[in-house]
Amino acid sequence: MRIDILTLFPDMFVPLRSSIIGRAEQKGVVEIVITDIRAHSKDRHEKCDDQPFGGGAGMVMTPQPIADAVKAVDPDHRAHRVYLSPKGRVLSMPRVKALAKDNKRLLLLCGHYEGVDQRVIDLYIDEEISVGDYVLTGGELPAMVLCDAVIRQLEGALSPGSLDDESFTAGLLEYPQYTRPQVFESLEVPEILLSGHHKNIETWRREQALKITRKNRPDLLNPPNQP
Amino acid sequence: MRIDILTLFPDMFVPLRSSIIGRAEQKGVVEIVITDIRAHSKDRHEKCDDQPFGGGAGMVMTPQPIADAVKAVDPDHRAHRVYLSPKGRVLSMPRVKALAKDNKRLLLLCGHYEGVDQRVIDLYIDEEISVGDYVLTGGELPAMVLCDAVIRQLEGALSPGSLDDESFTAGLLEYPQYTRPQVFESLEVPEILLSGHHKNIETWRREQALKITRKNRPDLLNPPNQP
Repeated sequence: MRIDILTLFPDMFVPLRSSIIGRAEQKGVVEIVITDIRAHSKDRHEKCDDQPFGGGAGMVMTPQPIADAVKAVDPDHRAHRVYLSPKGRVLSMPRVKALAKDNKRLLLLCGHYEGVDQRVIDLYIDEEISVGDYVLTGGELPAMVLCDAVIRQLEGALSPGSLDDESFTAGLLEYPQYTRPQVFESLEVPEILLSGHHKNIETWRREQALKITRKNRPDLLNPPNQP
Repeated sequence: MRIDILTLFPDMFVPLRSSIIGRAEQKGVVEIVITDIRAHSKDRHEKCDDQPFGGGAGMVMTPQPIADAVKAVDPDHRAHRVYLSPKGRVLSMPRVKALAKDNKRLLLLCGHYEGVDQRVIDLYIDEEISVGDYVLTGGELPAMVLCDAVIRQLEGALSPGSLDDESFTAGLLEYPQYTRPQVFESLEVPEILLSGHHKNIETWRREQALKITRKNRPDLLNPPNQP
């Protein structure tokens, strides 16, 4: 997969070079290309924002530099183009998996300040995605969150078996994990995990996952009908 | 506010030095201290993970280095201690505001791989928070998301007026924004925004916010009862 990221802050994307995502890129599972929107500004001071029509605090990103950056990196519209925005649909695991499966190319537009001119969204964007019900200073962290979630679903990104484990309690929160030492600050690892009895361990883990889900996220057990 | 971040990947936190959050730190609104958990490992190879008891793919972070790192940065438990985890309660704007208002200190623990030993959570963590319903490779990006959301609520982080604008359509998605030029690729800015009639503009923006919310997030208009 190729992922293009359009941003005013290209230096922020260091986290994508670390850990599992960085290694996925080294293994050729994904190619991430970051484009500085400012480099496409036709303004002689490379200006990329201006005051909103109709008034209000803050600045809005002007359409021209973004439109030209999109046309430069994806001239034939081969990428699925996403604008990270609090007014998009909220990202979920099914959407992450679909994005990973259905696309050879993604283009992620990061807004900043009060967002981008609506006409850029109307003309150049396929989908608006929000990573959660909170306001952030820009789309850069959300773009990294989306990259991380999608890339780890790509074949070859994780070691074999890692994704299987997540699916056996699909729709539930994670069961608690324990590792050495067997006793830590007088707390012991639950005995069942030392039993070697795989079927009992699986049953216990599922029960724990259900218990945590019931406590922290009862909505996952009785999801409301989504339109 | 002081925010301590405990992580195995201290180099990932470059985004917090950028843009509005970086400036908030320069202005003294917040102090962010990043601690490398590995530096607290008593293992002679500085090992910080091990296989899970009971089997399963992946590695679990061992309790000792994390416990010692927590005790080193917050010996008197003055910080509200948060573990970023997909099994926590999902972050929301009311929770962001409460975290910003109620705490002088936050401690954010970032898990990686298959997470941390449950006993560390039981002994040292006050609250588990998830930033959304999707799986990521670690808690580092979620910690940055939480920092960004919380810091911009602190007094002095944003320019005056920026937060007010967000509240007049509180509970709704954002209305569309427009800036210069007045005509872009044959699309015109909605005439009402050029009228100078503040009351009409406010009514239009509220209508637009309602329309977008109804389309993308009807659940915000009819929220289910949360337990």
